[in-house]
Amino acid sequence: MSSSSPNPQVITCKAAVAWGAGEPLVMEEVQVSPPNSMEIRIKVVSTSLCRSDLAAWESHAIFPRIFGHEASGIVESVGEGVTEFKEGDHVLTVFIGECKACRPCTSGKSNICQVLGLERKGLMHSDQKTRFSVKGKPVYHYCAVSSFSEYTVVHSGCAVKVSPHVPLEKVCLLSCGVAAGLGAAWNVANVTKGSTVVIFGLGTVGLSVAQGAKLRGASRIIGVDNNPQKCEKGAKISPEIDLNIVFSPSTILGSLFVIVVVVAAAKAFGFTEVVDPSSYQEPIAQVIKRITDGGADFSFECVGDTDMITTALQSCCDGWGLTVTLGVPKVKPEMSAHYGLFLMGRTLKGSLFGGWKPKSDLPLLVEKYVNKEIQIDDYITHNLPFDDINNAFDLMKEGKCLRCVIHMPR
Amino acid sequence: MSSSSPNPQVITCKAAVAWGAGEPLVMEEVQVSPPNSMEIRIKVVSTSLCRSDLAAWESHAIFPRIFGHEASGIVESVGEGVTEFKEGDHVLTVFIGECKACRPCTSGKSNICQVLGLERKGLMHSDQKTRFSVKGKPVYHYCAVSSFSEYTVVHSGCAVKVSPHVPLEKVCLLSCGVAAGLGAAWNVANVTKGSTVVIFGLGTVGLSVAQGAKLRGASRIIGVDNNPQKCEKGAKISPEIDLNIVFSPSTILGSLFVIVVVVAAAKAFGFTEVVDPSSYQEPIAQVIKRITDGGADFSFECVGDTDMITTALQSCCDGWGLTVTLGVPKVKPEMSAHYGLFLMGRTLKGSLFGGWKPKSDLPLLVEKYVNKEIQIDDYITHNLPFDDINNAFDLMKEGKCLRCVIHMPR
Repeated sequence: MSSSSPNPQVITCKAAVAWGAGEPLVMEEVQVSPPNSMEIRIKVVSTSLCRSDLAAWESHAIFPRIFGHEASGIVESVGEGVTEFKEGDHVLTVFIGECKACRPCTSGKSNICQVLGLERKGLMHSDQKTRFSVKGKPVYHYCAVSSFSEYTVVHSGCAVKVSPHVPLEKVCLLSCGVAAGLGAAWNVANVTKGSTVVIFGLGTVGLSVAQGAKLRGASRIIGVDNNPQKCEKGAKISPEIDLNIVFSPSTILGSLFVIVVVVAAAKAFGFTEVVDPSSYQEPIAQVIKRITDGGADFSFECVGDTDMITTALQSCCDGWGLTVTLGVPKVKPEMSAHYGLFLMGRTLKGSLFGGWKPKSDLPLLVEKYVNKEIQIDDYITHNLPFDDINNAFDLMKEGKCLRCVIHMPR
Repeated sequence: MSSSSPNPQVITCKAAVAWGAGEPLVMEEVQVSPPNSMEIRIKVVSTSLCRSDLAAWESHAIFPRIFGHEASGIVESVGEGVTEFKEGDHVLTVFIGECKACRPCTSGKSNICQVLGLERKGLMHSDQKTRFSVKGKPVYHYCAVSSFSEYTVVHSGCAVKVSPHVPLEKVCLLSCGVAAGLGAAWNVANVTKGSTVVIFGLGTVGLSVAQGAKLRGASRIIGVDNNPQKCEKGAKISPEIDLNIVFSPSTILGSLFVIVVVVAAAKAFGFTEVVDPSSYQEPIAQVIKRITDGGADFSFECVGDTDMITTALQSCCDGWGLTVTLGVPKVKPEMSAHYGLFLMGRTLKGSLFGGWKPKSDLPLLVEKYVNKEIQIDDYITHNLPFDDINNAFDLMKEGKCLRCVIHMPR
């Protein structure tokens, strides 16, 4: 008995197509194929712009392409063999799926599914083809999600059902960035009560690591970013300045605006201090080691800069310092570090989607949001209609947003 | 009440002094000061040559110097305040001490003592001076141990008492190399039952990792070394060839000798396979990934080569592959690796002395040796009198030994 939707047809709808590296997206009429076996077609409701979209758009060679991977939507139709979803189900998309059958999925030790893992060629996992076309020309996918389209097709293993009562325009952030940060702190680093944490990069991911570390009871959470403005819109500015801002004396007067902004971010997301490396003559790792009496217990690289991985390692303490790298570098993919950093007891780990197995774990995160145990709303600095999607790219390029949520036409 | 020995005097004795990088050691009459406060003076009984001695002798700029750090001996006198030791106690020396009071020592998370950690300047921890001189000229220490002398002075935190019934001429190997390997497998990597392990470098440390992995129930232990001859003397050659030797077909006939040797090493220390990278056209990491269906669960870099750290990382599996680096590189201290190796779930950790806290943990290892739960004897390929110490350096330089134990005159 086939469980597929009866005779789903090709849908023609609007999608924001990237035709070339760094070129503004163009709203096109695209044809979206019906879902193949074990796939579902989703009417996208909300999709937020993540830095990975930006990095791939600026640097990748695969075009034309439909970006977007942090999204929520409603199932429009299901392909043959799909029993987990039916038309009308509310879902989050995920950029790494969970087949529940491969060695990693059954290991209990990894979320990197061998069957539905990170897709880099712009094609669907199952048949290495696309489900989009413009005037007969194939348009490539991104991360097997491609949510910058009114409709998209994903493998049923790359979607997670959520209750129809949760606000899709908010929880789309759990589809990537916020979940990635929380999971890095909880699953990958296992941040402990009373520990000292330093976070490089105060974008949505870094701020989510801070939220995770705070909820674990870290006693000191130090943020490092050259651009504290990033947090301006997201955090409620508060008059109580009850945390240490570490600026060199010479810049204190000139930094009043920055301080207010930084304090707001710190208060909202759990930071106890924020350090701006450009205010120091000495390398930032030395600053961190000095103010933490030998280095942090945990450091997180959320910038996507391999040199910052080295700095994060240097900022950890001897003996048990743990560095987690979450970023995807745009340039210089090789990181390097002095062997002595490891010999003296440091550990370097990577974190992809915070170690979460999407189907097994995301429902718990959604529940935590509903129960107000975690916050999402404060990461949303901008809400934009789909037609304004290029504004979202501009805001992120300029470091002026945390998350821009793009809302599809109803 | 002072607990120091009554009036200990300067001792004049023989020591093998290194006057310059790579120059043969010279037997000199040295003056050994009495132990200072909290120090002990030891009559060295046995001391084995470790690769770190060789590396420092070849490259370090601190001369004249007395090398040697893997040693056993008998306490000759104790300095003021020492209550843990008395004259006649049998001891092992250790190159990282345990003060039992600093943050790492009390953390339960690290063996890298802040007070008696790795000493790199050739001086005693307490007063930054030496206890040796030749004709009034100070002679530097090595690792605060300097066991290539009939008598030496160490901090009481850098010695561990052992029962007078254990053979000092064997257990000196637990002072560094064998303990480092076992601890890397047990404490640092926590090798699990049924896992696949790959070990780069089949010297004493690498073979000890193999022993540790075997005792933990690893089901596959793959050794990688360009020089399987290293194991020739150490392992009992057995006629039963019941393991897979992975050589490319073209070299099989020419490698009969090597195979016999390798099999012997494998059988003695737990390897199920040994791979010689020089037999392959393809990079060795690719070979390992191919024969392990995606990479090992654990890899250990025991060579002291930062490029090999990269190879070890590449040889691990996605998801949970753990690489432990134990080696001290002679050249090129910077390791490098593609960020994607971490992002896909690998971890890189360092291991110094296998994570053992010397005073807390070494007695357990000695007990395991006495109870025949671990083996040491097979690592000893050569026994040499003190006067032949330069032969030990030659053998290690040429890769013809595992451990040479140097026996002091009685």
